[in-house]
Amino acid sequence: MEFTIGQIAQLLNGTVVGDAAGVIHSAAKIEEGQPGCISFLSNPKYESYLYTTQSTAVLVDQGFKPRTETSTTLIHVENAYLAFTRLLEEYQKITNHSRRGIEHPSFLGESSTVGADGYRGAFSYVGRQCHIGDRVSIYPQAYIGDNVRIGDDTVIHPGVRIYDNTVIGAHCVIFANSVIGSDGFGFAPQPDGNYKTIPQLGNVVIEDHVSIGSNATIDCATMGSTIIRAGVKIDNLVQIAHNVEIGKNTVVAAQTGISGSTKIGEQCVIAGQVGIAGHLSLANRTKVGAQSGVGKNIRKEGLSLSGSPAYDLNAHLRALAVVRNLPELEKRLTILEKQRIQAPSQ
Amino acid sequence: MEFTIGQIAQLLNGTVVGDAAGVIHSAAKIEEGQPGCISFLSNPKYESYLYTTQSTAVLVDQGFKPRTETSTTLIHVENAYLAFTRLLEEYQKITNHSRRGIEHPSFLGESSTVGADGYRGAFSYVGRQCHIGDRVSIYPQAYIGDNVRIGDDTVIHPGVRIYDNTVIGAHCVIFANSVIGSDGFGFAPQPDGNYKTIPQLGNVVIEDHVSIGSNATIDCATMGSTIIRAGVKIDNLVQIAHNVEIGKNTVVAAQTGISGSTKIGEQCVIAGQVGIAGHLSLANRTKVGAQSGVGKNIRKEGLSLSGSPAYDLNAHLRALAVVRNLPELEKRLTILEKQRIQAPSQ
Amino acid sequence: MEFTIGQIAQLLNGTVVGDAAGVIHSAAKIEEGQPGCISFLSNPKYESYLYTTQSTAVLVDQGFKPRTETSTTLIHVENAYLAFTRLLEEYQKITNHSRRGIEHPSFLGESSTVGADGYRGAFSYVGRQCHIGDRVSIYPQAYIGDNVRIGDDTVIHPGVRIYDNTVIGAHCVIFANSVIGSDGFGFAPQPDGNYKTIPQLGNVVIEDHVSIGSNATIDCATMGSTIIRAGVKIDNLVQIAHNVEIGKNTVVAAQTGISGSTKIGEQCVIAGQVGIAGHLSLANRTKVGAQSGVGKNIRKEGLSLSGSPAYDLNAHLRALAVVRNLPELEKRLTILEKQRIQAPSQ
Repeated sequence: MEFTIGQIAQLLNGTVVGDAAGVIHSAAKIEEGQPGCISFLSNPKYESYLYTTQSTAVLVDQGFKPRTETSTTLIHVENAYLAFTRLLEEYQKITNHSRRGIEHPSFLGESSTVGADGYRGAFSYVGRQCHIGDRVSIYPQAYIGDNVRIGDDTVIHPGVRIYDNTVIGAHCVIFANSVIGSDGFGFAPQPDGNYKTIPQLGNVVIEDHVSIGSNATIDCATMGSTIIRAGVKIDNLVQIAHNVEIGKNTVVAAQTGISGSTKIGEQCVIAGQVGIAGHLSLANRTKVGAQSGVGKNIRKEGLSLSGSPAYDLNAHLRALAVVRNLPELEKRLTILEKQRIQAPSQ
Repeated sequence: MEFTIGQIAQLLNGTVVGDAAGVIHSAAKIEEGQPGCISFLSNPKYESYLYTTQSTAVLVDQGFKPRTETSTTLIHVENAYLAFTRLLEEYQKITNHSRRGIEHPSFLGESSTVGADGYRGAFSYVGRQCHIGDRVSIYPQAYIGDNVRIGDDTVIHPGVRIYDNTVIGAHCVIFANSVIGSDGFGFAPQPDGNYKTIPQLGNVVIEDHVSIGSNATIDCATMGSTIIRAGVKIDNLVQIAHNVEIGKNTVVAAQTGISGSTKIGEQCVIAGQVGIAGHLSLANRTKVGAQSGVGKNIRKEGLSLSGSPAYDLNAHLRALAVVRNLPELEKRLTILEKQRIQAPSQ
Repeated sequence: MEFTIGQIAQLLNGTVVGDAAGVIHSAAKIEEGQPGCISFLSNPKYESYLYTTQSTAVLVDQGFKPRTETSTTLIHVENAYLAFTRLLEEYQKITNHSRRGIEHPSFLGESSTVGADGYRGAFSYVGRQCHIGDRVSIYPQAYIGDNVRIGDDTVIHPGVRIYDNTVIGAHCVIFANSVIGSDGFGFAPQPDGNYKTIPQLGNVVIEDHVSIGSNATIDCATMGSTIIRAGVKIDNLVQIAHNVEIGKNTVVAAQTGISGSTKIGEQCVIAGQVGIAGHLSLANRTKVGAQSGVGKNIRKEGLSLSGSPAYDLNAHLRALAVVRNLPELEKRLTILEKQRIQAPSQ
């Protein structure tokens, strides 16, 4: 698909400086651009690429003035980054001939209802008493158990497993092979050393506009619900245990694990490979650095934590700086001790 | 489903203090109870909830005496926690209309035998020369390779992949999308920098009453068997490498990884996100704290370890306390050094 | 299948010391050998097992001289370890009656081409406009999206999910339930606290001879390609984010995560549970120890790193040794301080 620079400028409400007739067929980072590509410049750190890029056009902020002439054509827009994102979305809409209809064979259990204009791929499975909304895509080989509810416009990717009684909102996306609602990890030790399985009778509730990456796992509640609030974004290979609640718009990066019954506030940012112990509360807007381990309640909002166990980010960075110098510090201590011993007056 | 308090007391061999005619339709934690719910009180820490809970009935231990009157009805039983667990089990039995029979299409290879009263879901695949026991459930889209043996009453959830030659005992549960028996990670470096794949000819053997969470991976042995002993409980996203052996009733929490050829003893408790290096032995009843990294053999039984690299839990906690104060400690050292330099007599 | 020791010696170009007529039917480690097994001795640390092993034959290096008589038959070869590996490969070739043909039902989209002599298992799905090479195995329940290219002799295991536009080379292996090409984790924060999804328009390119373990995830690029170069070996449960590039013959162990846009050099060795931050470069032959966290560029080739944050391995080990002694070190400091205070002359 091809567009002229002029067409793109019109779409984005921008002003062209240069040849508006140039033809664009692809998008690229400014440092990787090729003829026919459009790029954007937002962060001043990357400005030097503007003078060397091979991209045919570059989106820049309204007030931006190049230090020198450019061979690429500039399109001035209010916010170059947002305009670029919007362009990608428009492009995606045009090229994304999303799937519709039913491929065969696929399985639909008794008493289940499926809304209009959706997709059910080959080898997909929808159990009994399910209510699936309009325009829902259920990709091939996905599994949906019994008594599951899924809201409008949600996309279930290939190989996702959704257990009985799960409730999923509208406009959600669950990527391939994630598992929603399998049993919480609960076992009662017996006097003979064996463990007895504690029945897991609850479910998972996922609100609207939630995104869940690939190969993630969200366990059902022992009783009640594991709850993922609206707008939460969960990355690949994340583990969310039974009875966890994750607040609105919180972001959880890859390979993080959240233990049973912990409540995470709204607008938190949890980096990758973090571990959070069970039965804790984290206040709104808490930020947790990568590979940290949170072991206590965080009651004050907006804190940045780091370390395992995690505490204040800045205090942790100061301590880490000394840790590296510990062998040196020990030497200094030993010198002092020797001086003390050698001091004859004492 | 509804029961009276009297019916429940009879089932649990308990004594009612209050209105035995109250109606129960659900179970809840004591702090989250609603009218119509039954809860339990076992840990004295939670006693205050007894006086505020909205649950209609609460199970308490035989000798328990409330500090003040309660609006909820008490049921005295020998052990409130165990009675509650039993109640949930009974409830689960009644509500769990477990699946039976064969859904179509499903695949069954030549020379495979499947026992009585089981379930094979749509799009499930059972290879050749398999022996599947009685009352085994194989959920939709599960894959079982060739020459696999599965014992009675085992449940294979949707999307589980079981490679050729795997042996699984009776009363096991493997949750969705776990992979049992894929190749161990073995490559021999060649002089030209390439790696040559080392053939992985062994299998995985899983004994009785083992539970494996979702999206876990257990590799086959290079030669011989990777072995999971009876009663082991493995959580979601756990990695178990080739030739590992995990002893009876050991518990492994989510996202932990165990490297090749390591032997874990019986009744161990390995917390979440732990890493254990290869070719090690851990003695029986070893406890490893979350995010720890075990890098050496643990020969003494019953030790508690923590840290990366892991060592004695208490020693590690003492060291961590000092780590936080390191910037302060360095200041103290610097003061001493300055005093030394300023001391004119030396 | 059975062979005589003489047949094996002939295959491996070896010399028999003992009974060449002995019959071998299996392979085992020297310390676990049983009658009928063949083992090898390469590392001198294991020599004592040579005198107690029950294996019928043992491969040893050409010049090797036993300290005492052995009951097992020795086969002298140029390199015992390589000879053993070769033997396993030959054995695997003979016993591996690899699958061929098409099982039903399976799905093949319009305008897709599939080469000769391959395998497509039951419930496998191949989308539209795909080009699948010769002798490619697509196991049951695997999913291949639209416009995917797969080179000759590649094996796609059960439940693997390959998204649209992915390019995979020849002689690759992708183990069960791994996900290739799902969306990168990119969201733009909005003024109202919600996140807007950034369209992910790129793909994944995997070159020849790449091996990817089970339940791993490799995200597509935002624009351009996430690239896995020839000969790379990736273990189970590894996360590779959008726009990452991994250099030739680099090895990545289980549960490691590599964040967006990071470039890893050639011949690197990344151990298990490592985290690598985004937008970094790691030079060729970098080695990163287990559970480390890499947070900065590594420009010099061949360094060994450890710790979180990671730095020079040896410096880290020296610092760790002091960390353990920190409580002791603090005591020494306190003693010095007290002495100072008590010293009347100062």
